[in-house]
Amino acid sequence: MYIIADNLTITNPDVADAMDRTNPEKIFHLVRQCQAAGAEMIDINSGPLTKQPAEKMTFLVESVRQTTDLPLLLDTSNPMALEAGLKACKGKAVINGFSLEQEKLEHILPLARAFDTDIIGYLLYPNSNVPPDGAERLAVALELFAKCQEAGIDGDRLIIDPVIPPLIWQNGHTQAMEVVQVIRTLPDLLGFPVKTIAGISNLTSGRGHQNRKPVFEQCYTAILAEAGLSMALINVFHHGTIAAIRACNILMSDKVFSWL
Amino acid sequence: MYIIADNLTITNPDVADAMDRTNPEKIFHLVRQCQAAGAEMIDINSGPLTKQPAEKMTFLVESVRQTTDLPLLLDTSNPMALEAGLKACKGKAVINGFSLEQEKLEHILPLARAFDTDIIGYLLYPNSNVPPDGAERLAVALELFAKCQEAGIDGDRLIIDPVIPPLIWQNGHTQAMEVVQVIRTLPDLLGFPVKTIAGISNLTSGRGHQNRKPVFEQCYTAILAEAGLSMALINVFHHGTIAAIRACNILMSDKVFSWL
Repeated sequence: MYIIADNLTITNPDVADAMDRTNPEKIFHLVRQCQAAGAEMIDINSGPLTKQPAEKMTFLVESVRQTTDLPLLLDTSNPMALEAGLKACKGKAVINGFSLEQEKLEHILPLARAFDTDIIGYLLYPNSNVPPDGAERLAVALELFAKCQEAGIDGDRLIIDPVIPPLIWQNGHTQAMEVVQVIRTLPDLLGFPVKTIAGISNLTSGRGHQNRKPVFEQCYTAILAEAGLSMALINVFHHGTIAAIRACNILMSDKVFSWL
Repeated sequence: MYIIADNLTITNPDVADAMDRTNPEKIFHLVRQCQAAGAEMIDINSGPLTKQPAEKMTFLVESVRQTTDLPLLLDTSNPMALEAGLKACKGKAVINGFSLEQEKLEHILPLARAFDTDIIGYLLYPNSNVPPDGAERLAVALELFAKCQEAGIDGDRLIIDPVIPPLIWQNGHTQAMEVVQVIRTLPDLLGFPVKTIAGISNLTSGRGHQNRKPVFEQCYTAILAEAGLSMALINVFHHGTIAAIRACNILMSDKVFSWL
């Protein structure tokens, strides 16, 4: 399971400030910290970028690229920002992402073919609502896969995000366990070892007992790892979650392991 | 998933000392500590008790019973000790346990019927060796179930222990993940919701990086919980493992959960 930093987001005041002032220093610092903490890929969550989308995303991508060669996930719903980011990105980029929403099918999905990249597909309804259970999520997965085929995009370019619900939802824990089954079931359903990604911070987002969040995040991460999750999008400064991923990677390794 | 303390064992110097001096004070103290830490059952691991088996086990059981009403697991390979313990035990007792070893089939298994108790069956070969993989473990499970039926013991009295391997074994992590599949498969294989127990301390027993043991134990515990493990036999002073079990019990609860 790969570790992907969710830290480089517009909701982080340092990132917002760097963008406002077009000064990359705080981004350099954050990226270095993420990489030191164990990030193997970096998600650039720029938000929708309603003003100057191309310039802003180009600035973000170039700033991150000055610091690291890690693969980048370009995380925006704005096709103009996305296209500019893909053009600016030297090295591997992943589109994050599309859904059954008409706007995304028309303007985001084709970019995966045009730029020959992997693309993340969200298990959401066309109106962006979260399906209420695992069966509905699997039905959406089949539709996403069909949309990729229609767009001439190979199935192995698709990375599925089952959308982790927050525990503060009334049935959040039930849905969270259904997501585990979705991840376990997807390869059989689609008939190939489809890759999966999950935004794990979502589980404990919002209010809740701060001191209980880490153990929920760590346990759920271990459970997702055993279910076959390919990529964990996490706050890489949660050291316990990083340690959990590393332990699970060893437990699930085909290689001989020795800690003596 | 129930929390069972593995702390009350003859290898604990306080327990050995209490038995040598027939002085229960240290046992009282230990049992109170276990219960405060979250134990819901207590395993009394007396060892084989080659000298005075009945007296020693009676002393142990009565000492624990003076402190707690929790269910007790009587953990010895000595049928005389076991029978004395079952006689001495007021309240719920579980026999821990039997295997396909001839001696145990003849002298331990019948005690479950005689005393109308649950009994733990180990997925071990008749010579007490550990089967090398999951398929062999499942074959043993079918034999244990057949032996129960021959002995007139209901299937729902059987609790299966798949035998967790230590990670220091060359293929320990591979076997550990096969144990997860065994736990997941057993109810379908036997055709009823068979209960399972696992001695989780075994995973990280022996040499190894002390600072990495807790995260391996916690992650593996979460994975076992998702696979459906009924009873976790643990060192209840491992607070992180207790927290993991409690988090998993909430994640897997049918009830509505709120941590607000």
